[in-house]
Amino acid sequence: MAETWTSSSVDAHLDWTPGSGRKALADAIRTAIRGGRWQPDAVVPSTRALAADLGVARGTVTRVYSDLAAEGYLRTSQGAPTRVATVGALPPSPTPTYPRTTAPRWTLQAGQPDPSLFPRDQWLASTRRVLAHTPNDTFGFGDPRGSLVLRTTLAAYLGRSRGVLADPARMVVVSGFSHALAVLGRAFGDLGMHELAFEDPSIDVFRRFAQDSGQRVVGVPVDREGLVVDRLESPAVVVTAAHQAPLGVTMAPARRTALAKHGAIVVEDDYDGEFRYDRHQVGALQALSPERVIYAGTASKSLSPSLRLAWLVLPRFLVDPVVSALAGSGARPAMLDQLVLADLISSGAYDRQVRRCRLEYRSRRDRLVSALPEHLVPHGISAGLHLFVPLPPEAEAALPVAAARHSLAIQTGTPHTLTEPSSGLLIGYGAPSRPSFGGALTALLAVLREVGV
Amino acid sequence: MAETWTSSSVDAHLDWTPGSGRKALADAIRTAIRGGRWQPDAVVPSTRALAADLGVARGTVTRVYSDLAAEGYLRTSQGAPTRVATVGALPPSPTPTYPRTTAPRWTLQAGQPDPSLFPRDQWLASTRRVLAHTPNDTFGFGDPRGSLVLRTTLAAYLGRSRGVLADPARMVVVSGFSHALAVLGRAFGDLGMHELAFEDPSIDVFRRFAQDSGQRVVGVPVDREGLVVDRLESPAVVVTAAHQAPLGVTMAPARRTALAKHGAIVVEDDYDGEFRYDRHQVGALQALSPERVIYAGTASKSLSPSLRLAWLVLPRFLVDPVVSALAGSGARPAMLDQLVLADLISSGAYDRQVRRCRLEYRSRRDRLVSALPEHLVPHGISAGLHLFVPLPPEAEAALPVAAARHSLAIQTGTPHTLTEPSSGLLIGYGAPSRPSFGGALTALLAVLREVGV
Repeated sequence: MAETWTSSSVDAHLDWTPGSGRKALADAIRTAIRGGRWQPDAVVPSTRALAADLGVARGTVTRVYSDLAAEGYLRTSQGAPTRVATVGALPPSPTPTYPRTTAPRWTLQAGQPDPSLFPRDQWLASTRRVLAHTPNDTFGFGDPRGSLVLRTTLAAYLGRSRGVLADPARMVVVSGFSHALAVLGRAFGDLGMHELAFEDPSIDVFRRFAQDSGQRVVGVPVDREGLVVDRLESPAVVVTAAHQAPLGVTMAPARRTALAKHGAIVVEDDYDGEFRYDRHQVGALQALSPERVIYAGTASKSLSPSLRLAWLVLPRFLVDPVVSALAGSGARPAMLDQLVLADLISSGAYDRQVRRCRLEYRSRRDRLVSALPEHLVPHGISAGLHLFVPLPPEAEAALPVAAARHSLAIQTGTPHTLTEPSSGLLIGYGAPSRPSFGGALTALLAVLREVGV
Repeated sequence: MAETWTSSSVDAHLDWTPGSGRKALADAIRTAIRGGRWQPDAVVPSTRALAADLGVARGTVTRVYSDLAAEGYLRTSQGAPTRVATVGALPPSPTPTYPRTTAPRWTLQAGQPDPSLFPRDQWLASTRRVLAHTPNDTFGFGDPRGSLVLRTTLAAYLGRSRGVLADPARMVVVSGFSHALAVLGRAFGDLGMHELAFEDPSIDVFRRFAQDSGQRVVGVPVDREGLVVDRLESPAVVVTAAHQAPLGVTMAPARRTALAKHGAIVVEDDYDGEFRYDRHQVGALQALSPERVIYAGTASKSLSPSLRLAWLVLPRFLVDPVVSALAGSGARPAMLDQLVLADLISSGAYDRQVRRCRLEYRSRRDRLVSALPEHLVPHGISAGLHLFVPLPPEAEAALPVAAARHSLAIQTGTPHTLTEPSSGLLIGYGAPSRPSFGGALTALLAVLREVGV
């Protein structure tokens, strides 16, 4: 137990346990100084007095004082008494800057997979294999583009599963798609490109990463066939070709071809390309024009956004500028995590995980679609982890209050709009954990009834 | 085995294994189109002809063509033959952008720990414990400041081991010190601070991260007592107070006090604060002025730079701007890695790792210091993973060629200089693996003989 000691020579309370040694004594004095109990400029107890008070050797106190003088807590000078130096005092009890808020009970937020589907056992098994076999240089600084093992494994996987033309030398591993956008925005700027187009509507937070990296963001409308390519006038554009976010449209063949020929640099955000339910896989746009299209993939939906693992397949002319912007960002994913992902893929565990998630999300999609009131027409139901229900602006406007009343976290369409109207409800059926999906669905139906749709 | 098929109706080679199914056929046609073997605008084989050639059902070919049309590889129109669409062809064999260079056989590069000391078993054990017990929300999006578990664990550890006044609510977890600098540079800029001072000399790569984030970098000289605080005129400064990088000086008590009172924001880069060999621990500067000093710590030296794990303890007024700049960077370390580090610390394995490394590096330091020619005076030997040997500029200039001849990777002082001369040799004795330290030392002595010092 710590006891409080008061030196006889000055008023110097110390929280100190007898016999706990020199380091503890130094800590106790530091605490007393920081807390303001040993006031700035006050003369400290003499070494003799404090030693006697505390029952320690005088040499111990002398040494502690000398250490604390070296650290700037005490001020010593020849022939004068030692004093407390003027140092900043610790504010006694800092209030947390980010108070905990009450999270809604149910969630149907878009863009989030069910965290309970994370394959803990497989991740551990791959970690064990990697740690048993990886060479020591894994723990050095490594290639700025990311693990060559992962890039090689991904190149084959992306070719097989998404029809991507991937060359490991043209790939970089980044800390999530948000990091990719920040890095690409920087690289485009370095190349003299300062305007980046996004689909209108598109997920608002992603546009902010581009803006923060110095890009001017403009919108290009989306209709029933996807991006209206004729309206694209920017040097570069971000598209969600396979399953438009938020509207759910799949880009039509003619639009794909038009975009591949347009001349703009295309960032193909293939955020949920692995999740298709009803029709054949639509291959990546990137393969149509590998020297103009940047393919962006991620483990955020198939595994977890908390891993911060994503990858880019780059046109050749962009490799150097992107690697340089990536290095300048100062950040990249841990090498070990990259190798664990590579092992998951090459062991087949990743494919099993994707299939398992696909089955789970398809069954939720089916439950959701059949539970929705008949007159509501959901869009984008054939793929992904979300669907979109267009609603009149008045109904959309009433949603937040109703959702709050039923403790349901949900997003609406309008915040994702640049200029084109797109009111409606964005339903992310991936977000809830398996046992809470039913409850979330019940809350959703109650909310819809309440807003009268 | 894949075989090549030539359709009778057009010259259409396909690498396709009989009986391998629809998906393989689609892949084969994609490859043919990308590789230019099916030329743009060419009429494709009729479905009847290709089906007959390949011995598959006509419906199979029809479906493959329709998929490929949806992907933009083929162009179909009512009443006209199907043609190959004009798509970009894959360059036949892309040259890797970053050719492998021959690495030197020996290394004494500063700033790198021995990768063979990474505690693989302990990391795996902590990963197992975390995966067994962590709640599912670990795999969601999480707190932008980083894991609360890690921040709480680190706050206690930093208080105990480095005398830091750490409050978890004021800490952020970042992807290495380089990421910290990029984020801080951005946050300072948002607050209207556009000039960041560095010690002169200081490690050149770090200054570049600050510059890339928009800061104007200026130098403040370092003498035998550390940073010459009187010369500091910038609103913020980065210091390596405990063991100056590269010179090895420990900041004198009077300078510490002067800096704490200066009024500038101080970034205390405590990159190797855990490694002290000969004298008492010097506590963190941060505790002298927690509302002006940002404490920056890292797992790069104690564990591995490949983990990209570092942390900042912030003055209260900087929490919001830094959290916002961190979010804008798009990057952060994986939540799982953060929890594994927290488990390493709370289980005691991290302390054991630090002690183990300290013993290893101290014994290397001893071997190195006693092997150096007597007239050379190494600086900064009491701490860290590097020491500095001042040399005349002529000797320094001769080092790179001599080092290359002996296949030794090593750094000199001048590249780290802003304006103050600091020629010499920077010896990072942490970098080699244990078995290769002797060889690196022999190479070093040969290099020194060769340059005549």
